[in-house]
Amino acid sequence: MVGTVVQTVEIPARHGAAVEVKRGQVLRVVDVEGEQVGDLVCFNRHDLGEAYSPQNTVLFNRTIYPKIGALLVSNRGRPMMRLVADTVGVHDLICGSCSDGYYRNRLDHHEPHRSCRGNLTEAMAPWGVGPDAIPFSFNVFMRWPVGADGAVVPMSAPSRPGDYADFLAEMDVVAANSACPSDITPTNAHRPTPMRFVVYVPGG
Amino acid sequence: MVGTVVQTVEIPARHGAAVEVKRGQVLRVVDVEGEQVGDLVCFNRHDLGEAYSPQNTVLFNRTIYPKIGALLVSNRGRPMMRLVADTVGVHDLICGSCSDGYYRNRLDHHEPHRSCRGNLTEAMAPWGVGPDAIPFSFNVFMRWPVGADGAVVPMSAPSRPGDYADFLAEMDVVAANSACPSDITPTNAHRPTPMRFVVYVPGG
Repeated sequence: MVGTVVQTVEIPARHGAAVEVKRGQVLRVVDVEGEQVGDLVCFNRHDLGEAYSPQNTVLFNRTIYPKIGALLVSNRGRPMMRLVADTVGVHDLICGSCSDGYYRNRLDHHEPHRSCRGNLTEAMAPWGVGPDAIPFSFNVFMRWPVGADGAVVPMSAPSRPGDYADFLAEMDVVAANSACPSDITPTNAHRPTPMRFVVYVPGG
Repeated sequence: MVGTVVQTVEIPARHGAAVEVKRGQVLRVVDVEGEQVGDLVCFNRHDLGEAYSPQNTVLFNRTIYPKIGALLVSNRGRPMMRLVADTVGVHDLICGSCSDGYYRNRLDHHEPHRSCRGNLTEAMAPWGVGPDAIPFSFNVFMRWPVGADGAVVPMSAPSRPGDYADFLAEMDVVAANSACPSDITPTNAHRPTPMRFVVYVPGG
């Protein structure tokens, strides 16, 4: 990257992490080993009730496949972050996150299983954000394309080891990411692996 | 309909309304004059922190175009309502609701304008649900199809006068609907009109 690294956070396989990113800083989300999806959310650092909204992000960008330049928009209709670099070009805005309820009630999996909503709740606990206040996520590198008939087709992430997406903070945020623990659907090629946050100040 | 009407609520053009619907009852959403979109949400009557989730609804149904039989799923991954009758067959799960922020920051409209998120907040105020706790909506009769490139294409609602969609409550809910006030985008054919709720007990 061109810039100065402020912080690096390793996100273990099947777990989540959160970091503060100041306006003007960039959050890099790295797929360390490849074919790994990250469930990313963010909150206004100064008013945690304002959070990423996948719906407003679709509505503002008028697409379900965000490309470089796309805004991540809040539930109050304000820009929070902007996708500014991207070595993959595939992300999902519409499928949200896996959860206890999804494993149990949709996948018929009744054993305990880590989930993205659980990971994001753990990651945001230090900021006092409870489970119902966790928004549904921007799914970095997730490839579940929509067919002409509207069907969502589960596929594995196309990302390779070291691939990344960079998000410029348009306001001071807390960002959280879950290295998706799903090994049941093809999402992570049935092999959940680690991810990494790198926060940097852009500039030569 | 086949059944006994419990309650009818007129929803004036550009406004919202909310009703309680008991498990086993059906909520009919009627487009009175045609080409009108309704932004529908629902809450667990006994725990208002559990609310409709468009993401879980996509994830559980595996489609962005819900048809008869589709479940409306909560943020906790539980079925809330089920689409059981439908004279139109066109709905939107991914674009959410218009809002002050959307008019101002996306449509560059700076005069005061009623919005679906404002209407839903007004409608839910008697239950003590504040604006940030209003989920993004199931958009009844909304036709903004997604192209193969992911672009969302604004079109007017295909519904005709008297068309309806029926939602069977799978738990006791409070449901709120906004007769979408947008006259800027093609959503409501540039002519916002009234809608109606009819709550009925199915059966001969």
